[in-house]
Amino acid sequence: MPDPSSELSIQERLYPDLPCFGCGQANDKGLRLRSYPLGEAAVDGVTASFTPWPEHDNGLGYLNGGIIGTVLDCHSAAAVMLEAERRGWPPLPGADLSYVTAGLEVRYLRPAPLHDTVELFATVTDADEPQMTVEVELRFDGKVRAQATALWKRWRPRP
Amino acid sequence: MPDPSSELSIQERLYPDLPCFGCGQANDKGLRLRSYPLGEAAVDGVTASFTPWPEHDNGLGYLNGGIIGTVLDCHSAAAVMLEAERRGWPPLPGADLSYVTAGLEVRYLRPAPLHDTVELFATVTDADEPQMTVEVELRFDGKVRAQATALWKRWRPRP
Repeated sequence: MPDPSSELSIQERLYPDLPCFGCGQANDKGLRLRSYPLGEAAVDGVTASFTPWPEHDNGLGYLNGGIIGTVLDCHSAAAVMLEAERRGWPPLPGADLSYVTAGLEVRYLRPAPLHDTVELFATVTDADEPQMTVEVELRFDGKVRAQATALWKRWRPRP
Repeated sequence: MPDPSSELSIQERLYPDLPCFGCGQANDKGLRLRSYPLGEAAVDGVTASFTPWPEHDNGLGYLNGGIIGTVLDCHSAAAVMLEAERRGWPPLPGADLSYVTAGLEVRYLRPAPLHDTVELFATVTDADEPQMTVEVELRFDGKVRAQATALWKRWRPRP
């Protein structure tokens, strides 16, 4: 994984002023997720680390499923925005981002820890300009704890 | 909708000490969702109101998709725990709750507001003791903004 101190995250480079709760670097009460391209060619997916806050409890001493969904969604966003940049599909006039989430299907496979840093991995598995599909996982201690399929659609502002 | 001041929510009555980020009444940094049965026979589903916090931005001035998923998940929990109580499927020995979320499939249909109170509705559409399925919606101003299918599985603690 890249050294986060040595390079800008995808969020800091592509949308530094976003106030998104999950990944907006400009939201000082948000989770401020930072994601990084994997591999030199930057086609091997996108990775991030996330350290839960004490209040992110699922009620049973593990990481909350809603917070898991939040970071899976926002991490898939980083993969999508990076892919859109590579392919030359910038935000359309009047849009702040090139794509928006249309659906997120989360499977909760195993409990994820509340008091440890977890890892996120995302890969764009299908990309046409109208929509992209991302497979994204949350892992800890070598095991996938939750996985999601995220569907993103090109954001076309209405006239 | 019932007057919340006149009766206990499902969360307050069935699991008042839960520290869940989304619906734990004992989590003073959480969303503290409160859900109520609809109808006298209490078989018409479950409803709740949710007022977002300013930081729950999706980055574009609307309600964050991860927070939407969080309240859809926790509201479906209230429907499941109520159904489990009716059918006599209490938490098993060693379990704090009778069911846990196995999957959540969210469809984002329209933007949801960040600065208004939104409404949640959930109905258990399939219930066997091993698992339940819930359809849950987030609505504002007469329109469904997001909907989800939640799959809940009986929580069987390992010996």
